[in-house]
Order: sequence, then structure tokens, then C-alpha cells
Amino acid sequence: MSITPRFCIAAVLAHVAAAVSLASGPADANLNPEAYGPVVRKIFDHCRRGTDAYRKLETLCVEIGHRLSGSKSLDRAIDWAAETLRADGQENVRTEPVEVVRWVRGRESCELIEPYPRTIPMLGLGGSIATPPEGITAEVLCVRDEQELEKRADEARGKIVLFNFPMPADKPETGHGYGVAVRYRVAGASMAAKYGAVAALVRSVTTRSLSTPHTGGMHYRDGVPKIPAAAITVEYAELIDRLTRRGQRVVVRLKMQARTDPKPAMSANVLGELVGREKPEEIVVIGGHIDSWDVGQGAHDDGGGCVTAIEALSVLRKLGLRPRRTIRVVLFTNEENGLAGARTYAQTHADELPRHVAAIESDSGMFALRGFGISMADKDRQKRAAAQLEQILPLFAPLRENLRVFPGRSGADVGPLRPAGVATMGQIVDMTHYFDYHHTDADTIDKVDPKLLDENVAAMALMAYILADMPQRLGQP
Amino acid sequence: MSITPRFCIAAVLAHVAAAVSLASGPADANLNPEAYGPVVRKIFDHCRRGTDAYRKLETLCVEIGHRLSGSKSLDRAIDWAAETLRADGQENVRTEPVEVVRWVRGRESCELIEPYPRTIPMLGLGGSIATPPEGITAEVLCVRDEQELEKRADEARGKIVLFNFPMPADKPETGHGYGVAVRYRVAGASMAAKYGAVAALVRSVTTRSLSTPHTGGMHYRDGVPKIPAAAITVEYAELIDRLTRRGQRVVVRLKMQARTDPKPAMSANVLGELVGREKPEEIVVIGGHIDSWDVGQGAHDDGGGCVTAIEALSVLRKLGLRPRRTIRVVLFTNEENGLAGARTYAQTHADELPRHVAAIESDSGMFALRGFGISMADKDRQKRAAAQLEQILPLFAPLRENLRVFPGRSGADVGPLRPAGVATMGQIVDMTHYFDYHHTDADTIDKVDPKLLDENVAAMALMAYILADMPQRLGQP
Repeated sequence: MSITPRFCIAAVLAHVAAAVSLASGPADANLNPEAYGPVVRKIFDHCRRGTDAYRKLETLCVEIGHRLSGSKSLDRAIDWAAETLRADGQENVRTEPVEVVRWVRGRESCELIEPYPRTIPMLGLGGSIATPPEGITAEVLCVRDEQELEKRADEARGKIVLFNFPMPADKPETGHGYGVAVRYRVAGASMAAKYGAVAALVRSVTTRSLSTPHTGGMHYRDGVPKIPAAAITVEYAELIDRLTRRGQRVVVRLKMQARTDPKPAMSANVLGELVGREKPEEIVVIGGHIDSWDVGQGAHDDGGGCVTAIEALSVLRKLGLRPRRTIRVVLFTNEENGLAGARTYAQTHADELPRHVAAIESDSGMFALRGFGISMADKDRQKRAAAQLEQILPLFAPLRENLRVFPGRSGADVGPLRPAGVATMGQIVDMTHYFDYHHTDADTIDKVDPKLLDENVAAMALMAYILADMPQRLGQP
Repeated sequence: MSITPRFCIAAVLAHVAAAVSLASGPADANLNPEAYGPVVRKIFDHCRRGTDAYRKLETLCVEIGHRLSGSKSLDRAIDWAAETLRADGQENVRTEPVEVVRWVRGRESCELIEPYPRTIPMLGLGGSIATPPEGITAEVLCVRDEQELEKRADEARGKIVLFNFPMPADKPETGHGYGVAVRYRVAGASMAAKYGAVAALVRSVTTRSLSTPHTGGMHYRDGVPKIPAAAITVEYAELIDRLTRRGQRVVVRLKMQARTDPKPAMSANVLGELVGREKPEEIVVIGGHIDSWDVGQGAHDDGGGCVTAIEALSVLRKLGLRPRRTIRVVLFTNEENGLAGARTYAQTHADELPRHVAAIESDSGMFALRGFGISMADKDRQKRAAAQLEQILPLFAPLRENLRVFPGRSGADVGPLRPAGVATMGQIVDMTHYFDYHHTDADTIDKVDPKLLDENVAAMALMAYILADMPQRLGQP
């Protein structure tokens, strides 16, 4: 963890006092961040010496590996997580059943046939149908975006449409480039099928490629024929674009055995608690998603988020820090291709949601901390919550300076809790390299810096503790 | 090209004068760099407006693609290069026959069998023999280096030995990390076979991986059994290392159809000239290698070097800049797996070598210029040549500042000319990212910056012109 060597609790408390007096809204009189000085020191001193997080992540990534919904390895990961929470001494450890979709990739390949033979590195998109066993062999229509496809709609019939839309460079904090580009992965097949295309290819959604295909989820639009869809590397998307612009006819053969089981598979969310000392019925959720795509090891996405939550709770328990309210780890299943874990949790715990104070997700990779996102259904409450978080953030200065509150940001799994009034939050990190690895064979533990992992653990532990312990509920006066 | 906007020939000449007076050795009275001011301006003004280099590289990379020795695409590249030199109006354009090895990759795969099934991204190493058709399935012995292998020699029999040696980070100018790590790719198979291993795997030689295998050449040592050899990704080398350290048994199945034709194939070097106006029999060679590995497009390695030489000569001819001596483009064949082009050129032109003034190779990628390497058999001459180059370099300041002379560096293809007394040189660039792409499917034209390509063209054109025009021969008083 990059705790600054000049760690000094007095200086921190001076920061806090300054922040309180400078806060844009009226300072919250009930909030007394200075009171948490000893907790800050305990947590950061402990994490600075190194936590067990990396060893746990290594077990998840190396012994279990990737874990797509419906796979045996996801079952193993769920068992491992529950065992780990129990071994850490957590309370009320349990799994809660969730029905999930089971999509299976099967064998797949993409071959350039004309103008010369090449094997195109590819990954079928999650949810895609299969090709016939002999594959689909067709000329490629390469377009940059939906506008160009619409202009050239009469050329699409019988073709394989390739969307060569380059992901714009991310602003480190917003990840905005991904949001712009991912629509071709999600919706490209139906865009192309509308005009008679026989298959869809998309340029992998990333700004950096070393011949690296990126998978991810896709959806078919109702009323449009379903056609197979796959991602190819940036390099081959660029090659086909250049070839077709030079007037070359490009023919590709796509073979995919992908299938979705007609019946759902059984999976589970994993829960474990540090029960609150005064208001055990009020809950702060911390978590990530235990499933991953069926490539790489799901290290940044989202093994790291799961381990962060597990270890944050373990640190608090080891240090004897039991807050007023309950902190509950929830490891959601099926985030990647369904969000069934998150939806099922919201349904199963509907009665309890009014007593969910906050839910913090970590699902942006184990990179340097940038702050916390806050998103609430009631925008006035969100504003108040953001102001309260601004008062709390100076406590994190020994961990990393210049942290910020990001209004409107949280995470996919905590989204279904928002309509019930829960303060949904996200641990926000520097995402510069997140999409380099995202949904690829390169999302492996060798890309995770143990010190940054510990930094994420320390931040999650402290934020969870304060939200679970402070006198008022986050977002309330 | 990153010509600084404050381009001003007067300022350049002031730099030159200063450099001359500050040169560590005695300034060379015959060398008069100021005289080249108008040439500098012509070349850099022309290249700043953009050259034809990128369009040429696009044709080589996109229409022809990769070009391994003995392949039809290498034949096409050779024809294209000769046609291009002719279309540019060069003199004495010709191809000179070279016998080359023909190694063919064939189908290949590497599968993790235990502890769980995975497809390991891999590339067989050039020169490797095949496995039996059913593959070689064996437990993996993972070692970090030769020392560990020797310690554990009694564990190697019947195993597949994996060398998980991480390439040290490059110093940008020396590429030293590659030199340290590449020995396991080149010699790992024989190291392992000596102790009874049945196949060898090496961690890809790179510091950055996004699940990207790197091929490259390997050699069998005499007197040791030949075993198949392949590179796997950094990610899987790390995974297997971690699994075995955790006590897991790891089993891999390697299948390779690789073969080397018993008879050599015919290939060719490509030559073209700008004949000197006063001493046409004295020659400055500029060039790169026209062959590549059978992956990606050979864009940085070494399409860019070939195009740099072709376009540098084209720029000089277009500008009517005919130096005293002849400048000869030589595009060598078979650099990657034999160096037969370079050796054959040295033999074929043996009578002419005493009149070869210098030979400049570009084979380090089309990145930002850092300077020029100089290597000569006679170290006193090399010292004098380096001092002369130091006097010339300030002329390049409008292109890029802080260029350096790198004594002892040149290139593989010009190496066989060195024993004959030729001043062998290399165009030196920032290699920070060179090995990210090197010998992979990611060495494609989308990684080449057209402005940096033009910068390389301008630098090669100017250096070739000066060495071909200056009164004395480089390295002589």
C-alpha cells in the first residue's frame, strides 16, 4: 500500500478539520470525522504491513481460475468464498441460491479466406447463437459505426458486418470511452441483422491491443433475426478496414458452437457479516461479483473486488473494530451475463432494504484509489451524502491524497438496491489500464499490484466502518 | 515528422559550429558540416510535408502481409520492392539470388491438461522440429533459468521444461533486457534436452503482454537430442509457475507440425541505387530486411526499415540531391531465420567491399530517433568515425534534439560487412515499445506513427547523403 511515510495522525486530523470548515454545503454537525482518528491509524497501520488479500486472490485466480455463470469453476469459487469467510471468523456466512443463465462458448474460430488465409484471433460474444457446423463464409462489409451502416444498408444483405469503431481514450475517472464503444458489442448483431447481415463482428473494445480479443455480453433485439456475433482483435479490424478501403474483397469464415442452455443453472450469492454492536439490523453492504467471463482469471474483473470485500471485513474483525451497524459482504453471482445475483439479492432482501444504509461495490480493477462514487434515487439525499463523504475523505489522506467524491457513480450489482433508497456507492480507481485487460485472457493476477490491492482493502475497510458506525445514516441529516 | 516549429537554419549552423569546437577529439578539419545547411533544409522541409513512406508501408503490410523466408508472400514483397524502386526512378535496380532455409510452422497448439483444461496461446519457435501427430503430453518442470534447471536436472527426464525467465525492463537505448532473456528462446531446447526433457517451452520474450505469444528463432546444439520448442504467453508461464510452486502437478499437451524443408528455397536481396556524381564506385549502403516472421505484418520488424531506405533514396532523387558517392538500398532477405541475405551479399560483393564506405541498417522499429550506432572492426577507426558522426549530428537538431552516437551498435544484416573494414551503422530509436510487438501478431501497421516514420526517412536520407558526399571516408582522417 502506498501509505506515505510521513503518515501522521495529527496532520490528518488537521486536514479533516480544514475540510469540514471548507465543505461547500453546511458542515454536518452530527458527523465527527476526527473521532475516527484511532480507527484510521489501526486500519492503515495493519494494511501497510501487508494483508492476506493477494494470497486469497492467488487462490481464486490460480487454483480456481475463470468462472462463468453455470460453470463448475464458479461453483468452486462460491464454495471457496464461503469457506474463506468462515475461516476468517465472519458471522452468518451463507450462500443464497440464484438462477442464472448458462451460456457455453464451445469451439470457435474466425478465418480470413480472401484476399489471403489468416487465423483471426477472436472471442465469441456472450449470449451469441452458434453458426451452422460448417461455419458462415461471407464477404465482409466493414463500417465504422451505425451511421455508416445505415448509409450502406443495401450492401449488408448476405454479408458479415464488421463494426470497426475505435474505443475513444478513457478519461481516467469516467471510463467514458468504453460506454461509447460498447454499444456495438452489445447491439451490433441486431443492427446488422436488420439489414440482412448473416453475422456480426466487432472490433474489441479497448484502446490498447497486443493482438488481444475481448469478449463481453451482447443482446438480441426483439423482432430482428438472431445472427452470430464475435469480437476480433483491433489489429484485424484495422486490417480488414484498410483492405476494403483499398477495394479488396474480404471474405471471412466464422465458426461458433456457442449455445445457451434452455433451463437456468443454479448459482449463489455469498454472504458473510460483521454484526453491528448497536444497530445490527442496519446494514452496510460491501462487495463485488464472484463470476467472470470464461477467459483469463477474472483477476481485475472482479476477483480483486471480491477479495477486497472479504479482506476488508477480515481486517476489521482482526482489529476488533465492530461498528454500530452490520457490515455485510455480498459476492454477487452472474454480473457479467445477466445480473441475476444482484436482482435476486434485491428481491430476497426486499424487506430488509429500508435498513440498508449503503452498498459499496468494487468492480473497476485493483488500481490506485481515486475516491468513491455515490448514487441515490433521491438526488437531494445524494447531494447530502456526497457532502458527508467529502467530510470523510480527508481521513484517507495517509493512504492516497487528492481523493474525490464522484456523484452518480456506483456499480452494476448495487444498482437494483437504489430504487429502495439505498445509498449505492462504488470504489473508484484509476482505470487507465483497466480496459487493456477487461474480458481477455490477459486479466490475470500478474497484472495485480499487491500494494494497490492492499490499498483497496484499507480504503474499503475504513469507508465501510465509518458508514456503519457514524451517528446518522449516509444522506440523512 | 516532429520538426520543431522554430526550425531555423541559422540556429542549426550555430549548433554545428559549437559542436565542432566542443568535440572531444580534435575536430576533423576536412569535415565541414556547415556546408550541408541547404541539404538539411531541403530534406527536412520535404519530409515535414509528408513523404510517401506510410503509403508504401501500407501496401507492404496490408496487401502483402507477413513474409517468412521461402513463402510466396516474401516473393511478392521482393517483387514489390524492386518495382517500387524502379517506379521511384532508381538506378541499377536488381534482385540478387539467395538460398534460404524454408521452415514451415504448420498447425500447432498447446493445451493445459492438468489441473484444468485451458488453451494456452503459443507460437512454435522458428527452426523447431515437430511433435508426433498425437502431440507430446507430459508433466511440466518450471524453472526460472539455467541455474535452476541444473540444480533440478534429475527432475527433467521425460518432462516438458518451461523456462519462466522474465525479460528485464529495457534501458530504452540498449535493448539490453532482450539480450539477456532471448537465450532461453534460442538455446532453451538444448539446455532441457541435455537432461532428458521431451519438449521445451519458453516465456515469451517481452516486458508487456496482453496474452500475446512471441515467436523467434531457436537453434539446436550439436550432440544433444532435438526436442520441439515453443513460446507461450507471459500469463500462462506465470500461471504454471504459480501452480507448480503451490505443489500442483501441471500437465501440458504440445502439438506442432513444424518442419524444415530439406532443400533450400530461392529468395533474393533487392538493390537499387542513386549513383554518385564523382566517385560512383564508392558505396554507402542503407537498408533493412525484407523478410519477417509468419505472424502479424512485420510492420516495425522490419517493413519500416525497408520503407525507410526506399523512401530516403526517393526523397534524395526527387530533390535532385546526388552525392559524390553512390547510395545503394539493400533489402536483405532471411534476416529472421538464417541471415543468408546478409552473408550472400557480403560474398557476392566481396570485391566491392573495400569501396563500401558505410552501411546503415534500420531494424529497431519506427520510433522516435535517438541517434546512430557505429561499429567497425578497427576500433581506432571506429573512434574516429564516432567523432566525425558527433560533428554531423547537430545538423539533425531540427528533426529531433539530443541525438547521440552509440559506439558498438549497428544491425544484424550489416554485420558480415564489418570484417572487410566497412563502417557498419544502425539507425537508433526509442525501443521502449519495440519488444511489445516484436515477432507477434501485434506487429501491424496500426502501431506505426506516420510522423515518426517520416522522421526516420528524413534522418536516413540526410545521414546517407552526408556520408556519401563528405570529402573523406567515414573513419579516415
